[in-house]
Amino acid sequence: MVKLSEPQIEARLEQAEGWKLEDSKWIMKKYRFREFMAAIRFVDKVAVIAERLNHHPFISIDYKMVTIKITSWSAGGLTEFDFTSASEYDQVYEKTKV
Amino acid sequence: MVKLSEPQIEARLEQAEGWKLEDSKWIMKKYRFREFMAAIRFVDKVAVIAERLNHHPFISIDYKMVTIKITSWSAGGLTEFDFTSASEYDQVYEKTKV
Repeated sequence: MVKLSEPQIEARLEQAEGWKLEDSKWIMKKYRFREFMAAIRFVDKVAVIAERLNHHPFISIDYKMVTIKITSWSAGGLTEFDFTSASEYDQVYEKTKV
Repeated sequence: MVKLSEPQIEARLEQAEGWKLEDSKWIMKKYRFREFMAAIRFVDKVAVIAERLNHHPFISIDYKMVTIKITSWSAGGLTEFDFTSASEYDQVYEKTKV
């Protein structure tokens, strides 16, 4: 996968609600849940997607808040693949958050 | 729960293999796994314990490595409860790491 340029990243971020650029090579989003176990169920679903894509985000769980951080190590920055992963996580969140 | 003193924390840490003091109010440990999904299974077990104890650690998953950080917010520092939680996570790790 080809590393995206800064303008390309900016354009992608405009479409990716809640995602923020961090350290110019990560995209990051915080997902909030009503309870701790809902956060854990979300992480389980994220993990299945990550395995299927063979693209593993950094995940942290701070009680009812899950933070996902994505980068493409092989490209040394952000690629289209990071944004398609992000979109999959958003879709799972929409289904599981209630 | 009563906040532990520095000498008490030092004494507890000597018995808690791999646990380190961070910022004088957290204990932290990194657990390594053979594969990503084993790390996720461990997190699921940690979550069940955390719910049972009603004492939720900060958890992060960096591919095959899980970091657990524990503190007692209500005591403003570390308590005996943090070390008993830590011991439960260690026992689960011993059972699931292979």
